Amino acid sequence: LLTGLHQQVRRTIHRHGLLAEGSRVLVAVSGGSDSVALTRLLRDLAEHGSFTVVGLAHMNHGLRTTSDRDEAFCRDLARHLGLPIQVAQGRVLEYAAEHRLSTEEAARTIRYSFLEDRATAVGADRIAVGHTRDDQAETVLMKLVRGAGPVGLSGIYPRRGRVIRPLLEVSRSALRAWLERQGASWMEDETNEDISNPRNRLRLRVLPELAEVLGGDPRRAIAQVAALVREDSEWLESQVDTHVERLVRRGGAGIQADLAGVQALPTPLQRRLLRRALCELAGQAEVGFEHVEAVRALLRGKGGAVDVPGGRVELSAGMLVLIERKASSK
Amino acid sequence: LLTGLHQQVRRTIHRHGLLAEGSRVLVAVSGGSDSVALTRLLRDLAEHGSFTVVGLAHMNHGLRTTSDRDEAFCRDLARHLGLPIQVAQGRVLEYAAEHRLSTEEAARTIRYSFLEDRATAVGADRIAVGHTRDDQAETVLMKLVRGAGPVGLSGIYPRRGRVIRPLLEVSRSALRAWLERQGASWMEDETNEDISNPRNRLRLRVLPELAEVLGGDPRRAIAQVAALVREDSEWLESQVDTHVERLVRRGGAGIQADLAGVQALPTPLQRRLLRRALCELAGQAEVGFEHVEAVRALLRGKGGAVDVPGGRVELSAGMLVLIERKASSK
Repeated sequence: LLTGLHQQVRRTIHRHGLLAEGSRVLVAVSGGSDSVALTRLLRDLAEHGSFTVVGLAHMNHGLRTTSDRDEAFCRDLARHLGLPIQVAQGRVLEYAAEHRLSTEEAARTIRYSFLEDRATAVGADRIAVGHTRDDQAETVLMKLVRGAGPVGLSGIYPRRGRVIRPLLEVSRSALRAWLERQGASWMEDETNEDISNPRNRLRLRVLPELAEVLGGDPRRAIAQVAALVREDSEWLESQVDTHVERLVRRGGAGIQADLAGVQALPTPLQRRLLRRALCELAGQAEVGFEHVEAVRALLRGKGGAVDVPGGRVELSAGMLVLIERKASSK
Repeated sequence: LLTGLHQQVRRTIHRHGLLAEGSRVLVAVSGGSDSVALTRLLRDLAEHGSFTVVGLAHMNHGLRTTSDRDEAFCRDLARHLGLPIQVAQGRVLEYAAEHRLSTEEAARTIRYSFLEDRATAVGADRIAVGHTRDDQAETVLMKLVRGAGPVGLSGIYPRRGRVIRPLLEVSRSALRAWLERQGASWMEDETNEDISNPRNRLRLRVLPELAEVLGGDPRRAIAQVAALVREDSEWLESQVDTHVERLVRRGGAGIQADLAGVQALPTPLQRRLLRRALCELAGQAEVGFEHVEAVRALLRGKGGAVDVPGGRVELSAGMLVLIERKASSK
C-alpha cells in the first residue's frame, strides 16, 4: 500500500518528468536517512509503476571513521531488498591534491563520475540521488549570501542529464518520520554536527534562528522561491539560444561575437550570452559576476581589453573577440 | 570638495537614472543616520550638479517617546542647512484600526501619502528617501524566507514613480562613518534594538550569524543578487506587456483573457500575466502564489472555477473569465 509520502514523491516525479516509460534506475545510497528512504520509496513505487530499480551504488570515500560501517549497512540493505549493489573505494585526498580541489569538491566529482560509470555499466538511464528540500533551502541560502546571481538562486535541479532528485520537494524530517513508521533504520553521519563546516552552521544555527523570526520553517518558502527563479532562468536561457546561434562564431584562437548584436540585447540576455561565451573560454575555471561585468563595461566603450579566466576579451573590427590564453600574446 | 561617498552616491544616481536635468528634489528625513546623510549628501551634490534640493519633509508619527525630539532635530537640521522643512503629525493607530493594517503598514502608507502630497505642493518631481544596502539585504532575506517569488527577491527598487533611493548601494556603516568624519550628528532610534520585531531580529541575530558562517558581510552579495533578479524580472514584465495587450480584455463584470493564448505562454510569462490580472481584480487585497497556481491548474483543465481575492475565475467559451465579487452570484 502506498503512503502519503509515496504519493508526494510520485507527484515530484510526474511534475518534473523525472522518469520515462521503462526507465532503469540506479539509486545512489550513502546509508543516511535521505538515501535509505529514497531507495525504499523508489523500490515500492517501481512495483506500482513502469520503471525498474536496477540496483544500488555506494561510494566509500574512506574519509570518516564510520565509512566501513556505512558500507556494510548499505550492503545489508541491498541484500534485504534483493537488489544488486555496486561499491567503490574513493581516493579523495589524493584526487583533491592532484586537482587542487577542496575535499568536498573532490568527493563530489569522484562520486558522480563513479555513478555515471556504473549507470553505463548496468544500462541505467537514470541515477537517483537523495537531495531533499532541506538541501535545497541550504544551497539557495548559501548561494544568496555568497552572491551567486539568479543561476545560483535556482538551487539544485530536479534533473540534470541522467541524475534525478525525486526527494527534492520533501523535508528530511518527513523522510525520517516515515522511515521510523516503517521500522527501517539508517546510519547517522556525525560529521553533520560539525559547525566548523559552513553548511552545517547554516543548518544548525541560521535556519533555526530564521524559523524563530518567522514563527515557522523557512525551508518550504525558500525552496518554492528557488523553483520560481529556476523557471525564469530556464526560459531566459532558452531565449539566449537563438541569439547565440545568430551572433556567436567559434574559430581561430577563440570565440567571436557580433558587437552591435550583443550591444543591442536586453541586459538579462546579454549577461547570459556573455557568461556562456566566457565559460566556454574558461574551461574548468570559474567565471564570476565581475568578469561578465568587465566585458559589459568593454561593450559600453570603456577601455580596450580585459583579462578573463582562460584568456582575454577585446574589441576588433565590429566584433567582440575572446582569445584563448595560449594563443594570446600574454 | 566631494568625498568618495559623494562619488559613490553619484554613481548610483547615474546608473539608475534617478535624477533628470533640473530635477527638484524633496528629501524625506526622519532624523536617523540614513536620512541625515542623504540630506547632506544631496545638498552637496546639488551644488555640483544640475538639480535642486527644494526642501525637507518630516513625518512625526507620534509613536515613540522620542518623536518630538526627532522632529526638533529635523527642524534644526533644516535651519542649519538653510532649507525649508514641511512637518506633519500622523494618526497612525487610528488609520491602522480603520483600514485593518499593521502599525508598520499604516505608518508607511501615511508617510508616502504625505510625501507625495508635499512634493506636489512644492513642485518637486523627485522624493528622495534614505533606504540603504542594509535595508535592501534585510528586505530580500525576509522575502526569501517568506516565499515571495522573484518579485519579492527583487527587493527595494532604486526608483518607483517620483520616489528615488540614492543610498541603496551604500552600507549604513559607511554612512555613519562619513557623518562622524563630517562632525554631523543624528538621532538614534532605540526601537531598532527591539528584537521582538522580526526585521530587527534578522538584522541583530541572523545577519551577524551569516557573516560568521561566511567570514564576511553577506549584505553586499544579497543586494547584488537582488539587482540581478530585478533586471530579469523587469525584462520579463516588459515581455508580458505585449501579451496582455493581445490577450486580455476588460468589460462587463471583470476581465477576460483568451484561453488558448494564455495556455500557450511560457510558464514565466503565464504566471506574470495571471498575477497582473488577479491583482487588478483584487484591488487592495493581496494576491499570493497559491492564487496564481490555482488559476494555472484551471488552465490545465482541473475543475470548473476558483475563488480568488476580490472575485472568482472560471472558463467559459474559450475564455478565462475573472468575475468581480459584487457581480458574481456568490
